[in-house]
Amino acid sequence: MVLAVKENFPQAAGDPKAVAAAITALTASFGNRVVTSRAVREQHGNTLTWIANQPPDAVVFPQSTEDVQAIVRICASHHAPIIPFGTGTSLEGHVNAPQGGVSIDFRDMNKVLAVHVEDLDCVIEPGIQRKALNEYLRDQGVFFPIDPGADASLGGMAATRCSGTNAVRYGTMKDNVIALKVVLANGELMTTARRAKKTSAGYDLTRLIIGSEGTLGVITELTLKLAGIPEAIAAGVCPFPTVEACCNATIQTIQSGIPVARIELLDALQVKAVNLHSKLGLPETPMLFLEFHGTDASVAEQSRRFGEIAHDLGGGPFDWATQPEDRTRLWEARHHAALSNIALRPGSTIVPTDVCVPISRLAECVTATQRDIAESRLVAPIVGHVGDGNFHLTMLVDMSDADEVRRAKDLSERLVERSLAMDGTCTGEHGIGQGKMKYLLAEHGAAALSVMSTIKRALDPHNIMNPGKIVTLA
Amino acid sequence: MVLAVKENFPQAAGDPKAVAAAITALTASFGNRVVTSRAVREQHGNTLTWIANQPPDAVVFPQSTEDVQAIVRICASHHAPIIPFGTGTSLEGHVNAPQGGVSIDFRDMNKVLAVHVEDLDCVIEPGIQRKALNEYLRDQGVFFPIDPGADASLGGMAATRCSGTNAVRYGTMKDNVIALKVVLANGELMTTARRAKKTSAGYDLTRLIIGSEGTLGVITELTLKLAGIPEAIAAGVCPFPTVEACCNATIQTIQSGIPVARIELLDALQVKAVNLHSKLGLPETPMLFLEFHGTDASVAEQSRRFGEIAHDLGGGPFDWATQPEDRTRLWEARHHAALSNIALRPGSTIVPTDVCVPISRLAECVTATQRDIAESRLVAPIVGHVGDGNFHLTMLVDMSDADEVRRAKDLSERLVERSLAMDGTCTGEHGIGQGKMKYLLAEHGAAALSVMSTIKRALDPHNIMNPGKIVTLA
Repeated sequence: MVLAVKENFPQAAGDPKAVAAAITALTASFGNRVVTSRAVREQHGNTLTWIANQPPDAVVFPQSTEDVQAIVRICASHHAPIIPFGTGTSLEGHVNAPQGGVSIDFRDMNKVLAVHVEDLDCVIEPGIQRKALNEYLRDQGVFFPIDPGADASLGGMAATRCSGTNAVRYGTMKDNVIALKVVLANGELMTTARRAKKTSAGYDLTRLIIGSEGTLGVITELTLKLAGIPEAIAAGVCPFPTVEACCNATIQTIQSGIPVARIELLDALQVKAVNLHSKLGLPETPMLFLEFHGTDASVAEQSRRFGEIAHDLGGGPFDWATQPEDRTRLWEARHHAALSNIALRPGSTIVPTDVCVPISRLAECVTATQRDIAESRLVAPIVGHVGDGNFHLTMLVDMSDADEVRRAKDLSERLVERSLAMDGTCTGEHGIGQGKMKYLLAEHGAAALSVMSTIKRALDPHNIMNPGKIVTLA
Repeated sequence: MVLAVKENFPQAAGDPKAVAAAITALTASFGNRVVTSRAVREQHGNTLTWIANQPPDAVVFPQSTEDVQAIVRICASHHAPIIPFGTGTSLEGHVNAPQGGVSIDFRDMNKVLAVHVEDLDCVIEPGIQRKALNEYLRDQGVFFPIDPGADASLGGMAATRCSGTNAVRYGTMKDNVIALKVVLANGELMTTARRAKKTSAGYDLTRLIIGSEGTLGVITELTLKLAGIPEAIAAGVCPFPTVEACCNATIQTIQSGIPVARIELLDALQVKAVNLHSKLGLPETPMLFLEFHGTDASVAEQSRRFGEIAHDLGGGPFDWATQPEDRTRLWEARHHAALSNIALRPGSTIVPTDVCVPISRLAECVTATQRDIAESRLVAPIVGHVGDGNFHLTMLVDMSDADEVRRAKDLSERLVERSLAMDGTCTGEHGIGQGKMKYLLAEHGAAALSVMSTIKRALDPHNIMNPGKIVTLA
């Protein structure tokens, strides 16, 4: 077969002696910005989920694109693996170093390089975090709308093609990055596009890098689309008798063209967890958290129309408010949903899931999954960015109970199978990392997987760029 | 250098004997669906612009994805070039056959395979044209918003990453394709994604194919996002004293968050051409054509807010109407703008241009270009999708006048240089084809171009997929 010259692919970058030599060379160039202490290395492996912590051999803190080029050139000359690191909030083991190597931590590359308010864009370094960016932008009347909950770095958000609560209106990272600077596996610096809002000039290298999880290159600069801060924002919660009614209200909202900015499902157990953590005092029933953006007149109209939909489905009352404090309290509670779940079962470990299905199948998928959770005797509250058909169960697992771990793994497998059977995906926004590699073939088929491997092999012939993520090379 | 193993790349697919053998084999399989008459071949080369007509050696009309796979396998076994063909309305020589080969005409693959109104998506074959698709969808209350003016095929629209008048609100083809089926250079069929609205499952193969102009594979099926037909649509024209005032009104409209659906610039000469062709009787002054989508209340509010902006800039009055007949007349006139230009100079040949700059530079770019047109003594009306910073001059050139041709070429070069100097692109929506290849290096730099060549080489090692487009391989 033309596309898969698998035997030519060097599987095992990361020979320990070569990595040690790379670290020596890095230390000669970067001094105490190269760190090899066990604690720091472990912080740079996966820490948030059940995926084992696989620390890198060293962590280096670049301060410029030129630093990153120098780091990549040194690592490339030793075939030492390179793992880009933002805040470590990814959920599928993206930052792990299964073959050892060097973590590049973008902590010190966190500047806003330019804001072009007239063009609704900005140019930033990859290490800046979402909240700091929006803090910086606020006085200029603009914001970056993508909001995954965690206060992630923008570089990491682009690398995982993340989305979150606002995506139903503003799109995902793929829709909100105009251009990237990327250090390639040979140390060369690629600029993927210019600052024009659209272009048809050749292959879409911007979108190729977004979601590639550091396996094709290291992002060192991003040009982001911005949105104007809406004149008015209304937010509120709406209880429903069942999860199915929540899903149906969502479907009707989307179909009727209400430009809802956020529409989030919480099942009764998730509401309980949020109440425990954030003291919201909400009725413990399935509900939607919503937000509308627009003018005063438009958010009032959107809220009214949604309220009618909810009422027809037995939901409501839909209470909405336009006071910033109320909204902040609500969305902080929503953002803490994943963490608040720990309160439901102290000492447990989080096993995240992330399917996304066509919205017409959402109610069916969520209700079948709820039955499966009950039958599996697991604790797994559900939250969802339901306007996109995307939902998560956060399984709270006692990792010392082998039977429970097995049941959690089995539930996770069945959830992915259910999603794929409904023409959905194994990951709506978390990415593949290590945890989802096993599903890629079933999701995409052999030809697409072969194309992914071919691209990886062509752009990273020595397999040094975040090896062991996305594509298997066996 | 790791990325560019140029010497290994077979430049010259299309040996005449091998192509003849491929055509013999195709005829054995497809009978009279293989056509070699001169007239049909010439219709399948470039016909619309000054780029020379380079006809393929044969044209084949597949009826299914399996047909396309069989065609590609036959061509691949003979290293015969393959050129996908939709309606031939592309403007940069995309459908030409500079190395000969076989044009695959998707005329007979024009079915709607599924419409999922609940999910706001549909599955189609690539040969269906934009107007036929929207005709088919209308009764279901949905439409496909991308509108390049020409009644192009959806496969061609995806292949060139086209956009047009609605892009300012609905995005470009990159934003409105969910998944593709693509026949690869080895005849295998790749599915790029499933039907979920978003995914983070591996490399974004959908976006890699969109805009790749048939150079990486042949699109045989598309899953498209649809939009609900708005409750209310208002459209109108607004005259301004200068092109600069038009641009400034556009900038303020976008910045103030008015979700305008179309905002199109016509300079005075373009208005004159439209008047000649469509008998609109408009005042021959720079003007904006606009459209607003929403509820009755929302389009009234948008129209009022735009009217205030126009008034402050010395423009107006802004007359808007919500009657479908008036709107249709207006947009048909706009769509016929390019053709109507011929009325300004019968017998001339169209030399299209297509720059796109950050919107803050738009007024400056357009006014400098107007001066350049005057100084170049050329007839070149201007239209623009100015909400995106994208505008076209349509040069009307007497190809028998060598000096005029040279002046047109020089003007075109300077326009691209001007756009690039303003962080813009050489093509906002037409694509690279043959005509814009010379600008890719200046626009993207050597590293990005090398990555494009590397990907092309990896996925199409015998250079049979629409060779001589996008990437140079010298």
